[in-house]
Amino acid sequence: MPATVPSSRADAADPVEILRALIRCPSVTPEEGGALAYLDALLSAAGFATHRVTLTGPDTPDVQNLYARFGTRGPNLCFAGHTDVVPPGNAAHWRFPPFEGAIQDGLIYGRGAVDMKGGVAAFIAAGLDFAATHGPGGKGERPGSISFLLTGDEEGPAINGTEKLLRWLADRDERIDHCVLGEPSSRAALGDMVKIGRRGSLSGTLTVHGRQGHVGYPHLAENPIPGMVRLLAALKAEPLDGGNAHFQASNLEVVSVDVGNPAFNVIPAEARARFNIRFNDLWTPETLAAEIERRMVAAAGNEVRFALAFEARSSDSFLTAPGEFVDVVVEAVAQATGQRPELSTTGGTSDARFIKDYCPVVEFGLVGTSMHAVDESTPIDEVRALARVYAGTIERYFAVFGR
Amino acid sequence: MPATVPSSRADAADPVEILRALIRCPSVTPEEGGALAYLDALLSAAGFATHRVTLTGPDTPDVQNLYARFGTRGPNLCFAGHTDVVPPGNAAHWRFPPFEGAIQDGLIYGRGAVDMKGGVAAFIAAGLDFAATHGPGGKGERPGSISFLLTGDEEGPAINGTEKLLRWLADRDERIDHCVLGEPSSRAALGDMVKIGRRGSLSGTLTVHGRQGHVGYPHLAENPIPGMVRLLAALKAEPLDGGNAHFQASNLEVVSVDVGNPAFNVIPAEARARFNIRFNDLWTPETLAAEIERRMVAAAGNEVRFALAFEARSSDSFLTAPGEFVDVVVEAVAQATGQRPELSTTGGTSDARFIKDYCPVVEFGLVGTSMHAVDESTPIDEVRALARVYAGTIERYFAVFGR
Ligand SMILES: [Zn+2]
Ligand SMILES: [Zn+2]
Repeated sequence: MPATVPSSRADAADPVEILRALIRCPSVTPEEGGALAYLDALLSAAGFATHRVTLTGPDTPDVQNLYARFGTRGPNLCFAGHTDVVPPGNAAHWRFPPFEGAIQDGLIYGRGAVDMKGGVAAFIAAGLDFAATHGPGGKGERPGSISFLLTGDEEGPAINGTEKLLRWLADRDERIDHCVLGEPSSRAALGDMVKIGRRGSLSGTLTVHGRQGHVGYPHLAENPIPGMVRLLAALKAEPLDGGNAHFQASNLEVVSVDVGNPAFNVIPAEARARFNIRFNDLWTPETLAAEIERRMVAAAGNEVRFALAFEARSSDSFLTAPGEFVDVVVEAVAQATGQRPELSTTGGTSDARFIKDYCPVVEFGLVGTSMHAVDESTPIDEVRALARVYAGTIERYFAVFGR
Repeated sequence: MPATVPSSRADAADPVEILRALIRCPSVTPEEGGALAYLDALLSAAGFATHRVTLTGPDTPDVQNLYARFGTRGPNLCFAGHTDVVPPGNAAHWRFPPFEGAIQDGLIYGRGAVDMKGGVAAFIAAGLDFAATHGPGGKGERPGSISFLLTGDEEGPAINGTEKLLRWLADRDERIDHCVLGEPSSRAALGDMVKIGRRGSLSGTLTVHGRQGHVGYPHLAENPIPGMVRLLAALKAEPLDGGNAHFQASNLEVVSVDVGNPAFNVIPAEARARFNIRFNDLWTPETLAAEIERRMVAAAGNEVRFALAFEARSSDSFLTAPGEFVDVVVEAVAQATGQRPELSTTGGTSDARFIKDYCPVVEFGLVGTSMHAVDESTPIDEVRALARVYAGTIERYFAVFGR
């Protein structure tokens, strides 16, 4: 499956060749698709110590993951990412087959091209160059270690992926000092945005109880829907906060309201609404849940009987405050792309929510516009520029943090 | 299946025997279950001209119906009703088998005991007595005709039942002058309520359109749920009317709200709500639909994109204004039960919505409390009292309207 791989380290590794090889692995979550086996072989050959870790858990498929490290000294700069991809949908709608890696007019096409096999290929290429420079055949001394944390469970339940792999490493006293997550962070041009944080996410279900009955006799029933309308209006009536220096305002979206009553002549017994909140660092999942509960109690009064339940898997926000580490990445971006990246905390959650419990983490990668879409693609020049950003990050990192 | 039937007309017909025979016919819509065949035989033997009419229509099962008339002169007083019943549910939850007609402590148990085999049995008994009195072996002159309009499709779609049977009769120049519908109209005690009208019913679906997206990027999406909350609040904000002398206020119930979004991280594209309005004679389905449309347009402004659709099968309200015919029934009730019935227009729709297009109609029958429930039952004394109400109605009717 993997295409031609640079077999000699005389020349710099080509991230576009690596990306093409990765795209040819149909690694739709939870399938490994050959992607991690390919990277394992590549990194082992270059002198990395590699660990294939199959993680398992109840009610979710087993997932393969990979950790690879070059060097044994600290500090350890880790690049994190995922090789799994979302399904391509109907392949017939694609201009080129989604697992082929066709290149045309300077663009490489394929599922995962930007999210995030492009980022993986770029940092692997940078890592191979670092190993070539500092390996047995290389000349320089090793200023520390670099490592790769690669999961096959980011687009899926994210249960048998980064979170457990980090714990697996910690259990083995494997220390990561700083981390760059290669998710597509750029907005319109490569280098225009670095993510130094993400909002947290809290999901909940609101149930309003009534009493079933016939629409002809409403006084004998209790319709839960007007109560639900009242509570939903109260849920959105006041903003949660106004944001702060690093974060935009927290935002609540009601994502579904469901009664499921097929009959026009029956007043239903119950109505359910589901909501999600993306929240900044003014809240924790706990303080936010308490605030939602307070609002619902106030709006319900004695008239509306409701129950509120929050999902167990909430994720906290994270922020890597501007400072030396962020500067390392920002300067590498500026040098390789000519862009001064905006420091942002917008967008959805990422695996950085797990990594931040172990070390500072920032996210930098390709322009994400076509991610998860038909004809996902990225300019090959930007893949190569991204590899230069990562190479520059490694160089600056050890200049600042190396011992 | 039918139990012992009074074979001699020397004694008055016993409505409890007829009711028990009917309960033993498992006539869950659309099954005839032997009920109409039994009544056909009974009425034919008593000198009624009977017509078994199987009505058919697209997408609904064929249904058997029965029309029977005694006499050829006008006026023709018709008793209308249905022999079909709703399913018994789990028969194991019943005290007695639902199709047995067990009698204990003065109560007869069975599916349909009150809705409305009890009413049918009572007016059939009254009709058999009338025929015995005025038939070949009887003594009196015939003051007019009595008839029975019996459908097997009231609890189902009500498409191949009363509505089509009335048209079938009209096509044959069969004229009905007044009608008593034997639905369980009494509230707490037999005779406490006669229904002289019913509210109409109009159902509709409201759809609010948005644009799907990721909850992390709400500015790229358009959540339809806040718009739906706003429109639903507006739908119930102002009462439709205050009712009038004969009718309570019109009432709107939102019976379902559905989005069907399984994901917490996706803003849905669309939300749907379904509602039903029970309306009085201040409205027609057309004027009411226009008022709902007006309210939604006003509440939506330029911000909410919505669509409103009304169900084709709305039913108009009806009212048989107090007067000579209502008095006939009221006086018969008062004499047989000692109750002065309240004249009411409350509750759900009934087949009277079809009958009112042909002649004045009122509804009188048993206490409906146990209808459609497990252990549906009625006191046998009340079945016999109801037969006396109907016999008194026949007598008074011909005294007032007979030629
Ligand atoms: Zn990703
Ligand atoms: Zn009924």
